Amino acid sequence: MSQNATVRHSWVLRHRPSGEPSPDDFALREDAVPEPGPGEVVTRTIWLSIDPYMRGRLREQQTYAVAIQIGEVMTGETVGEVIASGDPQFAPGDVVVGARGWQSHCVTLADRLVKLPRQGAPLSTYLGVLGMPGATAYRGITEICQPKAGETVVVSAASGAVGSVAGQLAKRAGARVVGVAGGPEKCLFVQETLGFDDCIDHRSMDLRRELTASCPSGIDAYFENVGGAIQAAVFDLLNPFSRVAMCGMVSQYNEPEFPPGPNLGFVVGKRVLIQGFIVSDKPEKLAEWRALAAPWVADGTLAYREDVHEGLEEAPAALVGILGGQNFGKLLVRVGENPT
Amino acid sequence: MSQNATVRHSWVLRHRPSGEPSPDDFALREDAVPEPGPGEVVTRTIWLSIDPYMRGRLREQQTYAVAIQIGEVMTGETVGEVIASGDPQFAPGDVVVGARGWQSHCVTLADRLVKLPRQGAPLSTYLGVLGMPGATAYRGITEICQPKAGETVVVSAASGAVGSVAGQLAKRAGARVVGVAGGPEKCLFVQETLGFDDCIDHRSMDLRRELTASCPSGIDAYFENVGGAIQAAVFDLLNPFSRVAMCGMVSQYNEPEFPPGPNLGFVVGKRVLIQGFIVSDKPEKLAEWRALAAPWVADGTLAYREDVHEGLEEAPAALVGILGGQNFGKLLVRVGENPT
Repeated sequence: MSQNATVRHSWVLRHRPSGEPSPDDFALREDAVPEPGPGEVVTRTIWLSIDPYMRGRLREQQTYAVAIQIGEVMTGETVGEVIASGDPQFAPGDVVVGARGWQSHCVTLADRLVKLPRQGAPLSTYLGVLGMPGATAYRGITEICQPKAGETVVVSAASGAVGSVAGQLAKRAGARVVGVAGGPEKCLFVQETLGFDDCIDHRSMDLRRELTASCPSGIDAYFENVGGAIQAAVFDLLNPFSRVAMCGMVSQYNEPEFPPGPNLGFVVGKRVLIQGFIVSDKPEKLAEWRALAAPWVADGTLAYREDVHEGLEEAPAALVGILGGQNFGKLLVRVGENPT
Repeated sequence: MSQNATVRHSWVLRHRPSGEPSPDDFALREDAVPEPGPGEVVTRTIWLSIDPYMRGRLREQQTYAVAIQIGEVMTGETVGEVIASGDPQFAPGDVVVGARGWQSHCVTLADRLVKLPRQGAPLSTYLGVLGMPGATAYRGITEICQPKAGETVVVSAASGAVGSVAGQLAKRAGARVVGVAGGPEKCLFVQETLGFDDCIDHRSMDLRRELTASCPSGIDAYFENVGGAIQAAVFDLLNPFSRVAMCGMVSQYNEPEFPPGPNLGFVVGKRVLIQGFIVSDKPEKLAEWRALAAPWVADGTLAYREDVHEGLEEAPAALVGILGGQNFGKLLVRVGENPT
């Protein structure tokens, strides 16, 4: 499906999945590319971000954001090129981040958009290492995990968009950083390319024993993306005064009923801090992070990896995949060509 | 058993309880009241404090303090009168807090003792409302729960030494305060004497329904002393950005194996803070609390209730009782008479 100047394609929710979603839960809708109203901007989508939080939007019960309704367009952050503008701040040819939707074209209020530089970092990075996932890692590490030199920090989903940045930030703070990832290829990447001190394969027979061996001084901070058996193994190794940044628990996002969790007695005795957070609660942190991290991306000291699916038609399958850990790096859908 | 000038009585651990302790797990030992060495002070015990944390000391595995060994004297805070001193800062007749042990007489390094005023608050209050339990409530409320006017705060074990102070501090901050306690008599006390807005009887058939009805705007902060079913019911009602001060989980202290806890998915979505703490980590807070609260105790605006067992021989039964929620207010053993 190629991008068309007059036809808009949009993925809408057809029915709510129970358990693992399937591409069949979504329907592709076609209509005309709209004209912008006053204060609105129409973009053609270049990049669409696929993130685990989207599974929560498919639940009937509200999680931390309003559920997607049946027939409604799926949400997702995009980078796009302005093709028509009803606002004087934007003109055709501008490249922007902030429009949302699994769509070939988005209509967005101008005040939600941020113009991106045409020089410098690749546009896709504004959805990953320089975007919401990077800012998520930044907040979790600096505000909650607060690693100190010599401490041990564990990061789950270590090769993913958030985990890869979280671990590299903990390394910059001088901590020993141990990743947890799925499979030998990801673990190698986490150690060799991201520079973590070690990475445990959570598919291994004895996660708990390997984690214990890799954290001989216990665990001082944990950046939680996964939950489940990994959470249980990490919690047993937490040190007194340790910090847990609760960013996500992707291992259970497809579960209709959540399983019991850890007994919290250890939280008292070990004076553990467990703090949930959502990056969008502090939107100002995104710009702060971009300013901080852009030079690191430019000079190559902040590594990242992207997993690109080609074409808007791939969006549902990409979401199914990320919930099963099939992506390798920041998951993106290329919807349209870069501006010329 | 009356206090004797030459014979010392001490409760030692005979064997580790599995499940609920029994007085038979302890043995009463008799020896001579010792002479103080250089820098040591000998006190005769007036009041002995009995607290839920003591159950943790009976476990083989270390919790947050070193386990009591078989044959070792049980630990516990006391108020006592100095009868002999090897340190120039203390003289016979001084009344002090800081000596530890289920004993008629304690030998203590002078630098662990704090002299108490002979005028003012009753001596027993230095083990309760003005002592470690009061300071525990103070830290949990001011550092973690941080209630704001109009918020809803829930306190479990609300009639106990810690909970009673925690709830009154939350009331002073302008919050709506809901207690959870065991039985109608305690609930009445929590509302009428302590001034909480409501109190739920956790023995009621439908704790969850009653708590929901009593917290129509959800729960913004929880002071956790109990765990178990109360914790589960409270967690389900936590609001976004709520705070949980993890002070203790007495409902499980007698359990050989801790049961599973809550699934922590809600912590992410609701950005919940769960923070464990132990009062003795900031010993300086005790003096701060005493200075702050002594006028409130004197003018009657900080209410408290004591549950006094008479005689050192009652200490083991008192501990068994507090773990089953049988105490009503701060649990104390009167070991000797007040100084004349």
